[in-house]
Amino acid sequence: MKIAVLGTGMVGQALAARLSGLGHTVTVGTRDPEATLARTEPDVGAWLGEHPEVTLAPYAEATAGAELVVLAGNGAASHDMLAAAGGDHLDGTVVLDISNPLDFSAGFPPSLFVKDTDSLGEQLQRRFPGLRVVKSLNTLNASLMVEPAALGTSSTVFVSGDDAGAKALVVALLESFGHDDVIDLGGIETARGTEMVLPLWLRLMAALGTPHFNLKVVRRAS
Amino acid sequence: MKIAVLGTGMVGQALAARLSGLGHTVTVGTRDPEATLARTEPDVGAWLGEHPEVTLAPYAEATAGAELVVLAGNGAASHDMLAAAGGDHLDGTVVLDISNPLDFSAGFPPSLFVKDTDSLGEQLQRRFPGLRVVKSLNTLNASLMVEPAALGTSSTVFVSGDDAGAKALVVALLESFGHDDVIDLGGIETARGTEMVLPLWLRLMAALGTPHFNLKVVRRAS
Repeated sequence: MKIAVLGTGMVGQALAARLSGLGHTVTVGTRDPEATLARTEPDVGAWLGEHPEVTLAPYAEATAGAELVVLAGNGAASHDMLAAAGGDHLDGTVVLDISNPLDFSAGFPPSLFVKDTDSLGEQLQRRFPGLRVVKSLNTLNASLMVEPAALGTSSTVFVSGDDAGAKALVVALLESFGHDDVIDLGGIETARGTEMVLPLWLRLMAALGTPHFNLKVVRRAS
Repeated sequence: MKIAVLGTGMVGQALAARLSGLGHTVTVGTRDPEATLARTEPDVGAWLGEHPEVTLAPYAEATAGAELVVLAGNGAASHDMLAAAGGDHLDGTVVLDISNPLDFSAGFPPSLFVKDTDSLGEQLQRRFPGLRVVKSLNTLNASLMVEPAALGTSSTVFVSGDDAGAKALVVALLESFGHDDVIDLGGIETARGTEMVLPLWLRLMAALGTPHFNLKVVRRAS
Protein backbone atom coordinates (compact mmCIF):
# COMPACT_ATOMS: atom_id res chain seq x y z
CA MET A 1 0.00 0.00 0.00
CA LYS A 2 1.18 3.54 -0.71
CA ILE A 3 1.24 5.34 2.63
CA ALA A 4 2.06 8.90 3.66
CA VAL A 5 3.19 9.42 7.24
CA LEU A 6 2.86 13.07 8.25
CA GLY A 7 5.25 13.95 11.07
CA THR A 8 8.98 13.35 11.51
CA GLY A 9 9.12 12.87 15.30
CA MET A 10 9.13 9.68 17.36
CA VAL A 11 5.65 8.59 16.32
CA GLY A 12 6.20 9.34 12.65
CA GLN A 13 9.52 7.52 12.61
CA ALA A 14 8.11 4.48 14.43
CA LEU A 15 5.16 4.20 12.06
CA ALA A 16 7.17 4.83 8.91
CA ALA A 17 9.84 2.26 9.80
CA ARG A 18 7.32 -0.42 10.77
CA LEU A 19 5.09 0.13 7.73
CA SER A 20 8.08 0.09 5.44
CA GLY A 21 9.35 -3.09 7.10
CA LEU A 22 5.98 -4.68 6.36
CA GLY A 23 6.47 -3.97 2.66
CA HIS A 24 4.45 -0.79 2.23
CA THR A 25 5.71 2.12 0.15
CA VAL A 26 6.17 4.88 2.69
CA THR A 27 6.78 8.58 2.20
CA VAL A 28 7.24 10.77 5.23
CA GLY A 29 5.60 14.15 4.78
CA THR A 30 7.00 17.33 6.23
CA ARG A 31 6.45 21.04 5.62
CA ASP A 32 9.86 21.74 4.17
CA PRO A 33 12.21 18.78 3.61
CA GLU A 34 15.30 20.99 3.48
CA ALA A 35 14.47 22.63 6.79
CA THR A 36 13.69 19.22 8.32
CA LEU A 37 17.03 17.81 7.18
CA ALA A 38 18.86 20.87 8.51
CA ARG A 39 17.62 20.17 12.06
CA THR A 40 19.44 17.78 14.38
CA GLU A 41 16.60 17.24 16.85
CA PRO A 42 15.17 14.97 15.64
CA ASP A 43 17.97 14.02 13.29
CA VAL A 44 15.76 12.96 10.41
CA GLY A 45 18.71 12.85 8.02
CA ALA A 46 20.47 10.20 10.11
CA TRP A 47 17.22 8.27 10.51
CA LEU A 48 16.61 8.31 6.74
CA GLY A 49 20.15 7.01 6.29
CA GLU A 50 19.16 3.97 8.34
CA HIS A 51 15.89 3.62 6.40
CA PRO A 52 16.87 4.17 2.77
CA GLU A 53 13.57 2.72 1.56
CA VAL A 54 11.65 5.62 3.16
CA THR A 55 11.54 8.93 1.30
CA LEU A 56 10.94 12.46 2.59
CA ALA A 57 8.71 14.90 0.70
CA PRO A 58 6.53 17.97 1.25
CA TYR A 59 3.04 17.18 2.59
CA ALA A 60 1.26 17.53 -0.75
CA GLU A 61 3.76 15.39 -2.61
CA ALA A 62 3.83 12.71 0.10
CA THR A 63 0.08 12.34 0.11
CA ALA A 64 -0.47 12.42 -3.66
CA GLY A 65 -1.86 9.03 -4.60
CA ALA A 66 -1.55 7.65 -1.05
CA GLU A 67 -4.22 5.13 -0.01
CA LEU A 68 -3.56 5.93 3.61
CA VAL A 69 -2.41 9.10 5.35
CA VAL A 70 -1.10 8.74 8.90
CA LEU A 71 -1.33 11.83 11.10
CA ALA A 72 1.63 11.28 13.37
CA GLY A 73 2.57 14.78 14.44
CA ASN A 74 1.75 17.26 17.17
CA GLY A 75 -2.03 17.47 17.53
CA ALA A 76 -1.90 21.25 17.44
CA ALA A 77 -0.53 20.95 13.87
CA SER A 78 -2.92 18.30 12.58
CA HIS A 79 -5.34 20.74 10.94
CA ASP A 80 -2.53 22.58 9.15
CA MET A 81 -0.81 19.35 8.08
CA LEU A 82 -3.96 18.09 6.38
CA ALA A 83 -4.62 21.49 4.85
CA ALA A 84 -1.05 21.68 3.51
CA ALA A 85 -1.46 18.15 2.16
CA GLY A 86 -4.41 19.45 0.16
CA GLY A 87 -6.96 17.72 2.38
CA ASP A 88 -9.84 19.12 0.35
CA HIS A 89 -8.54 17.31 -2.72
CA LEU A 90 -7.89 13.93 -1.09
CA ASP A 91 -11.52 12.82 -1.06
CA GLY A 92 -11.95 9.20 -0.09
CA THR A 93 -8.47 8.84 1.39
CA VAL A 94 -8.27 7.02 4.72
CA VAL A 95 -6.64 9.10 7.47
CA LEU A 96 -5.29 7.27 10.50
CA ASP A 97 -5.24 10.02 13.12
CA ILE A 98 -2.82 9.19 15.94
CA SER A 99 -2.47 12.78 17.13
CA ASN A 100 -3.57 14.01 20.54
CA PRO A 101 -4.81 17.55 21.27
CA LEU A 102 -1.97 18.42 23.64
CA ASP A 103 -1.65 21.95 24.94
CA PHE A 104 1.77 22.64 26.44
CA SER A 105 1.13 26.38 26.94
CA ALA A 106 1.11 25.91 30.73
CA GLY A 107 4.07 23.49 30.75
CA PHE A 108 4.12 19.83 31.71
CA PRO A 109 1.91 17.88 32.08
CA PRO A 110 0.02 19.25 29.08
CA SER A 111 -3.72 19.80 29.14
CA LEU A 112 -5.99 19.14 26.15
CA PHE A 113 -7.07 21.91 23.81
CA VAL A 114 -10.29 20.11 22.93
CA LYS A 115 -12.06 17.58 25.13
CA ASP A 116 -15.22 16.04 26.43
CA THR A 117 -17.82 17.76 24.22
CA ASP A 118 -15.72 17.54 21.06
CA SER A 119 -12.47 15.92 19.94
CA LEU A 120 -9.61 16.51 17.55
CA GLY A 121 -10.73 13.52 15.49
CA GLU A 122 -14.19 15.02 15.03
CA GLN A 123 -12.76 18.45 14.25
CA LEU A 124 -10.65 16.99 11.46
CA GLN A 125 -13.55 14.95 10.07
CA ARG A 126 -15.78 18.06 10.07
CA ARG A 127 -13.16 20.25 8.40
CA PHE A 128 -12.32 17.67 5.72
CA PRO A 129 -15.60 15.81 5.19
CA GLY A 130 -14.25 13.97 2.12
CA LEU A 131 -11.56 12.22 4.15
CA ARG A 132 -12.31 8.99 6.02
CA VAL A 133 -10.84 9.70 9.45
CA VAL A 134 -10.09 6.84 11.84
CA LYS A 135 -8.75 7.67 15.29
CA SER A 136 -6.49 5.00 16.73
CA LEU A 137 -3.17 4.28 18.47
CA ASN A 138 -3.28 7.57 20.39
CA THR A 139 -3.39 5.79 23.75
CA LEU A 140 0.07 4.24 23.89
CA ASN A 141 3.77 4.78 23.40
CA ALA A 142 5.15 4.95 19.85
CA SER A 143 7.27 1.80 20.10
CA LEU A 144 4.32 -0.20 21.46
CA MET A 145 1.99 1.17 18.78
CA VAL A 146 3.92 -0.75 16.16
CA GLU A 147 5.27 -3.64 18.29
CA PRO A 148 2.70 -4.46 20.99
CA ALA A 149 4.14 -7.94 21.43
CA ALA A 150 7.02 -6.30 23.30
CA LEU A 151 4.76 -6.26 26.37
CA GLY A 152 4.68 -10.05 26.33
CA THR A 153 0.90 -10.22 26.69
CA SER A 154 -2.24 -8.93 25.00
CA SER A 155 -3.23 -5.30 25.40
CA THR A 156 -5.95 -3.18 23.81
CA VAL A 157 -6.14 -0.49 21.15
CA PHE A 158 -9.26 1.33 19.99
CA VAL A 159 -10.67 2.55 16.68
CA SER A 160 -13.20 5.35 16.19
CA GLY A 161 -14.54 6.41 12.83
CA ASP A 162 -17.64 6.92 10.74
CA ASP A 163 -16.54 4.83 7.73
CA ALA A 164 -16.66 1.04 8.14
CA GLY A 165 -14.32 0.39 5.21
CA ALA A 166 -11.74 2.82 6.54
CA LYS A 167 -11.89 1.20 9.95
CA ALA A 168 -11.47 -2.25 8.41
CA LEU A 169 -8.33 -1.06 6.60
CA VAL A 170 -6.91 0.37 9.82
CA VAL A 171 -7.79 -2.73 11.84
CA ALA A 172 -6.01 -4.94 9.31
CA LEU A 173 -2.95 -2.71 9.61
CA LEU A 174 -3.08 -2.85 13.42
CA GLU A 175 -3.29 -6.64 13.27
CA SER A 176 -0.26 -6.68 10.98
CA PHE A 177 1.60 -4.80 13.75
CA GLY A 178 0.65 -7.56 16.18
CA HIS A 179 -2.38 -6.03 17.88
CA ASP A 180 -4.70 -8.85 18.94
CA ASP A 181 -7.37 -6.86 20.80
CA VAL A 182 -8.81 -4.00 18.75
CA ILE A 183 -12.07 -2.56 20.10
CA ASP A 184 -14.27 -0.66 17.65
CA LEU A 185 -15.80 2.07 19.82
CA GLY A 186 -18.11 3.36 17.08
CA GLY A 187 -18.25 6.68 15.24
CA ILE A 188 -15.55 9.34 15.21
CA GLU A 189 -17.24 11.07 18.19
CA THR A 190 -16.00 8.20 20.38
CA ALA A 191 -12.52 9.69 19.92
CA ARG A 192 -13.57 11.85 22.89
CA GLY A 193 -13.06 8.76 25.01
CA THR A 194 -9.60 7.85 23.79
CA GLU A 195 -8.23 11.39 23.55
CA MET A 196 -9.13 11.88 27.22
CA VAL A 197 -6.98 8.89 28.21
CA LEU A 198 -3.87 11.04 27.89
CA PRO A 199 -4.17 12.62 31.36
CA LEU A 200 -4.18 9.13 32.91
CA TRP A 201 -1.40 7.95 30.61
CA LEU A 202 0.82 10.87 31.66
CA ARG A 203 0.29 10.15 35.38
CA LEU A 204 0.93 6.44 34.82
CA MET A 205 4.20 7.19 33.02
CA ALA A 206 5.25 9.28 36.02
CA ALA A 207 4.15 6.67 38.58
CA LEU A 208 5.59 3.66 36.74
CA GLY A 209 8.74 5.45 35.59
CA THR A 210 8.38 4.16 32.05
CA PRO A 211 6.25 4.76 28.95
CA HIS A 212 6.31 1.03 28.19
CA PHE A 213 2.84 0.07 29.29
CA ASN A 214 -0.59 -0.15 27.74
CA LEU A 215 -4.18 -0.64 28.81
CA LYS A 216 -5.98 -3.94 28.44
CA VAL A 217 -9.74 -3.91 28.66
CA VAL A 218 -10.43 -6.95 30.82
CA ARG A 219 -13.85 -8.45 30.29
CA ARG A 220 -15.43 -11.87 30.44
CA ALA A 221 -15.05 -13.81 27.22
CA SER A 222 -18.12 -13.13 25.09
CA MET B 1 -13.53 -0.11 61.41
CA LYS B 2 -16.40 2.38 61.75
CA ILE B 3 -17.28 3.50 58.25
CA ALA B 4 -19.79 6.00 56.86
CA VAL B 5 -20.91 5.44 53.28
CA LEU B 6 -22.49 8.61 51.87
CA GLY B 7 -24.90 7.81 49.07
CA THR B 8 -27.76 5.33 48.81
CA GLY B 9 -27.53 4.42 45.10
CA MET B 10 -25.84 1.48 43.40
CA VAL B 11 -22.33 2.48 44.44
CA GLY B 12 -23.29 3.22 48.02
CA GLN B 13 -25.20 -0.04 48.38
CA ALA B 14 -22.36 -2.09 46.86
CA LEU B 15 -19.76 -0.53 49.14
CA ALA B 16 -21.90 -0.69 52.27
CA ALA B 17 -22.82 -4.34 51.75
CA ARG B 18 -19.27 -5.43 51.02
CA LEU B 19 -17.73 -3.47 53.89
CA SER B 20 -20.33 -4.79 56.27
CA GLY B 21 -19.73 -8.32 55.02
CA LEU B 22 -16.05 -7.87 55.81
CA GLY B 23 -16.94 -7.11 59.42
CA HIS B 24 -16.86 -3.31 59.43
CA THR B 25 -19.50 -1.26 61.21
CA VAL B 26 -21.26 0.56 58.41
CA THR B 27 -23.70 3.44 58.51
CA VAL B 28 -25.13 4.73 55.28
CA GLY B 29 -25.48 8.49 55.30
CA THR B 30 -28.28 10.32 53.54
CA ARG B 31 -29.73 13.82 53.72
CA ASP B 32 -33.06 12.82 55.20
CA PRO B 33 -33.57 9.15 56.16
CA GLU B 34 -37.36 9.45 56.16
CA ALA B 35 -37.40 10.88 52.65
CA THR B 36 -34.92 8.24 51.48
CA LEU B 37 -37.09 5.44 52.89
CA ALA B 38 -40.19 6.95 51.28
CA ARG B 39 -38.66 6.60 47.81
CA THR B 40 -38.92 3.37 45.84
CA GLU B 41 -36.12 4.11 43.35
CA PRO B 42 -33.75 3.06 44.75
CA ASP B 43 -35.75 1.05 47.27
CA VAL B 44 -33.40 1.62 50.18
CA GLY B 45 -35.93 0.27 52.65
CA ALA B 46 -36.02 -3.12 50.94
CA TRP B 47 -32.23 -3.13 50.65
CA LEU B 48 -31.83 -2.36 54.36
CA GLY B 49 -34.21 -5.24 55.07
CA GLU B 50 -31.73 -7.54 53.33
CA HIS B 51 -28.80 -5.93 55.18
CA PRO B 52 -30.04 -5.55 58.77
CA GLU B 53 -26.51 -4.95 60.04
CA VAL B 54 -26.32 -1.67 58.06
CA THR B 55 -27.97 1.41 59.52
CA LEU B 56 -29.25 4.55 57.83
CA ALA B 57 -28.65 7.99 59.36
CA PRO B 58 -28.34 11.66 58.40
CA TYR B 59 -24.91 12.64 57.04
CA ALA B 60 -23.66 14.24 60.26
CA GLU B 61 -24.76 11.32 62.43
CA ALA B 62 -23.36 8.71 60.03
CA THR B 63 -19.94 10.34 59.93
CA ALA B 64 -19.62 11.11 63.65
CA GLY B 65 -16.70 9.05 64.91
CA ALA B 66 -16.17 7.32 61.56
CA GLU B 67 -12.57 6.45 60.72
CA LEU B 68 -13.43 6.37 57.04
CA VAL B 69 -16.00 8.28 55.02
CA VAL B 70 -16.84 6.90 51.57
CA LEU B 71 -18.16 9.41 49.03
CA ALA B 72 -20.37 7.16 46.92
CA GLY B 73 -22.94 9.53 45.51
CA ASN B 74 -23.44 11.75 42.51
CA GLY B 75 -20.30 13.83 42.00
CA ALA B 76 -22.38 16.99 41.69
CA ALA B 77 -23.50 16.42 45.29
CA SER B 78 -20.11 15.55 46.81
CA HIS B 79 -19.35 19.05 48.08
CA ASP B 80 -22.75 19.37 49.74
CA MET B 81 -22.59 15.86 51.21
CA LEU B 82 -19.29 16.60 52.94
CA ALA B 83 -20.52 20.01 54.06
CA ALA B 84 -23.71 18.47 55.49
CA ALA B 85 -21.58 15.84 57.20
CA GLY B 86 -19.78 18.69 58.95
CA GLY B 87 -16.66 18.29 56.84
CA ASP B 88 -14.97 21.19 58.61
CA HIS B 89 -15.23 19.32 61.92
CA LEU B 90 -13.99 15.94 60.69
CA ASP B 91 -10.31 16.86 60.66
CA GLY B 92 -8.05 13.89 60.09
CA THR B 93 -10.79 11.62 58.76
CA VAL B 94 -9.94 9.61 55.68
CA VAL B 95 -12.32 10.22 52.77
CA LEU B 96 -12.45 7.64 50.00
CA ASP B 97 -13.83 9.66 47.09
CA ILE B 98 -15.39 7.40 44.45
CA SER B 99 -17.52 10.14 42.90
CA ASN B 100 -17.13 11.35 39.33
CA PRO B 101 -17.86 14.92 38.18
CA LEU B 102 -20.66 13.92 35.82
CA ASP B 103 -22.73 16.62 34.15
CA PHE B 104 -25.98 15.27 32.70
CA SER B 105 -27.34 18.70 31.77
CA ALA B 106 -26.97 17.91 28.06
CA GLY B 107 -28.25 14.35 28.38
CA PHE B 108 -26.37 11.08 27.86
CA PRO B 109 -23.48 10.53 27.62
CA PRO B 110 -22.66 13.00 30.39
CA SER B 111 -19.73 15.40 30.15
CA LEU B 112 -17.53 16.33 33.11
CA PHE B 113 -18.11 19.52 35.12
CA VAL B 114 -14.45 19.73 36.08
CA LYS B 115 -11.57 18.24 34.13
CA ASP B 116 -8.02 18.43 32.90
CA THR B 117 -6.76 21.49 34.80
CA ASP B 118 -8.53 20.56 38.04
CA SER B 119 -10.50 17.63 39.44
CA LEU B 120 -13.32 16.93 41.84
CA GLY B 121 -10.88 15.20 44.18
CA GLU B 122 -8.70 18.30 44.34
CA GLN B 123 -11.72 20.57 44.80
CA LEU B 124 -12.85 18.55 47.80
CA GLN B 125 -9.35 18.48 49.31
CA ARG B 126 -9.04 22.27 48.90
CA ARG B 127 -12.46 22.96 50.38
CA PHE B 128 -11.93 20.63 53.36
CA PRO B 129 -8.18 20.81 54.00
CA GLY B 130 -8.45 18.90 57.28
CA LEU B 131 -9.81 15.79 55.55
CA ARG B 132 -7.45 13.23 54.03
CA VAL B 133 -8.98 12.67 50.60
CA VAL B 134 -8.08 9.60 48.55
CA LYS B 135 -9.55 9.22 45.09
CA SER B 136 -10.07 5.63 44.02
CA LEU B 137 -12.50 3.11 42.49
CA ASN B 138 -14.04 5.75 40.22
CA THR B 139 -12.93 3.92 37.07
CA LEU B 140 -15.08 0.80 37.21
CA ASN B 141 -18.54 -0.59 37.76
CA ALA B 142 -19.92 -0.76 41.33
CA SER B 143 -20.11 -4.55 41.49
CA LEU B 144 -16.51 -4.88 40.26
CA MET B 145 -15.29 -2.22 42.70
CA VAL B 146 -16.04 -4.56 45.57
CA GLU B 147 -15.63 -7.94 43.81
CA PRO B 148 -12.92 -7.60 41.14
CA ALA B 149 -12.36 -11.36 41.14
CA ALA B 150 -15.62 -11.66 39.20
CA LEU B 151 -13.61 -10.80 36.07
CA GLY B 152 -11.58 -13.96 36.52
CA THR B 153 -8.24 -12.22 36.06
CA SER B 154 -6.29 -9.32 37.49
CA SER B 155 -7.30 -5.76 36.66
CA THR B 156 -6.11 -2.39 37.93
CA VAL B 157 -7.41 0.29 40.27
CA PHE B 158 -5.71 3.58 41.11
CA VAL B 159 -5.24 5.71 44.22
CA SER B 160 -4.54 9.45 44.30
CA GLY B 161 -4.03 11.42 47.49
CA ASP B 162 -1.69 13.68 49.40
CA ASP B 163 -1.63 11.66 52.65
CA ALA B 164 0.42 8.47 52.66
CA GLY B 165 -1.31 7.04 55.73
CA ALA B 166 -4.74 7.62 54.22
CA LYS B 167 -3.68 5.94 50.99
CA ALA B 168 -2.30 2.97 52.93
CA LEU B 169 -5.65 2.57 54.70
CA VAL B 170 -7.52 2.68 51.38
CA VAL B 171 -5.11 0.29 49.68
CA ALA B 172 -5.57 -2.24 52.51
CA LEU B 173 -9.32 -1.94 52.06
CA LEU B 174 -9.03 -2.42 48.29
CA GLU B 175 -6.92 -5.52 48.87
CA SER B 176 -9.55 -6.87 51.24
CA PHE B 177 -12.03 -6.53 48.34
CA GLY B 178 -9.72 -8.67 46.20
CA HIS B 179 -7.85 -5.99 44.26
CA ASP B 180 -4.40 -7.31 43.42
CA ASP B 181 -3.09 -4.44 41.26
CA VAL B 182 -3.38 -1.04 42.94
CA ILE B 183 -1.30 1.71 41.35
CA ASP B 184 -0.47 4.74 43.48
CA LEU B 185 -0.49 7.61 40.98
CA GLY B 186 0.72 10.20 43.48
CA GLY B 187 -0.92 13.30 44.94
CA ILE B 188 -4.60 14.17 44.76
CA GLU B 189 -3.96 16.17 41.56
CA THR B 190 -3.48 12.85 39.75
CA ALA B 191 -7.25 12.38 40.14
CA ARG B 192 -7.36 14.42 36.92
CA GLY B 193 -6.15 11.31 35.18
CA THR B 194 -8.68 8.87 36.60
CA GLU B 195 -11.68 11.20 36.49
CA MET B 196 -11.05 11.67 32.77
CA VAL B 197 -11.32 7.92 32.18
CA LEU B 198 -15.11 8.18 32.36
CA PRO B 199 -15.56 9.28 28.73
CA LEU B 200 -13.70 6.15 27.57
CA TRP B 201 -15.54 3.98 30.08
CA LEU B 202 -18.92 5.18 28.77
CA ARG B 203 -17.98 4.44 25.14
CA LEU B 204 -16.62 1.02 26.14
CA MET B 205 -19.86 0.18 27.94
CA ALA B 206 -21.76 1.06 24.77
CA ALA B 207 -19.39 -0.87 22.48
CA LEU B 208 -19.13 -3.97 24.69
CA GLY B 209 -22.78 -3.93 25.73
CA THR B 210 -21.91 -4.46 29.38
CA PRO B 211 -20.50 -2.51 32.33
CA HIS B 212 -18.65 -5.62 33.49
CA PHE B 213 -15.15 -4.76 32.38
CA ASN B 214 -12.14 -3.01 33.84
CA LEU B 215 -8.78 -1.68 32.73
CA LYS B 216 -5.56 -3.52 33.40
CA VAL B 217 -2.34 -1.59 33.07
CA VAL B 218 -0.12 -4.06 31.24
CA ARG B 219 3.57 -3.51 31.82
CA ARG B 220 6.67 -5.62 32.00
CA ALA B 221 7.25 -7.16 35.41
CA SER B 222 9.46 -4.78 37.41
